[in-house]
Amino acid sequence: MALKEREGRDTLARRIRELRLARGWAQDRLAEESGLHRTYIGAIERSEHNVGIDTIAKLANALKISLKDLFDESKSK
Amino acid sequence: MALKEREGRDTLARRIRELRLARGWAQDRLAEESGLHRTYIGAIERSEHNVGIDTIAKLANALKISLKDLFDESKSK
Repeated sequence: MALKEREGRDTLARRIRELRLARGWAQDRLAEESGLHRTYIGAIERSEHNVGIDTIAKLANALKISLKDLFDESKSK
Repeated sequence: MALKEREGRDTLARRIRELRLARGWAQDRLAEESGLHRTYIGAIERSEHNVGIDTIAKLANALKISLKDLFDESKSK
């Protein structure tokens, strides 16, 4: 399976948004839960940043999901 | 499940090394396949870098594995 470079951040963007909405959270709430800035959450959801693994882990922690499930598009929550 | 920040890069480090060795590849080979520098592969495997999603995708691509499976510790290959 060829995973294009851009696909990584697009998958992350899509999943963060999907998981956030599944919790009924605004970007503000995810920002608060993760300790990241709200505008940064918005930028991540627009694939604008090459997000580091430390931040990915913070987001997974805030969403209470494993890294595996964060990247598992078959899991809606 | 609480995922500590450091756990993200430690999981990544462990998985990259494990998947590389499962293919019988030296770090040189993974460097060649991914277009990254060999010393950078070594640093990733020692959890020394906050690796960005673009690079994680490059590594997954080189290892021919999905992002989900890259972070799935139940999959040895």
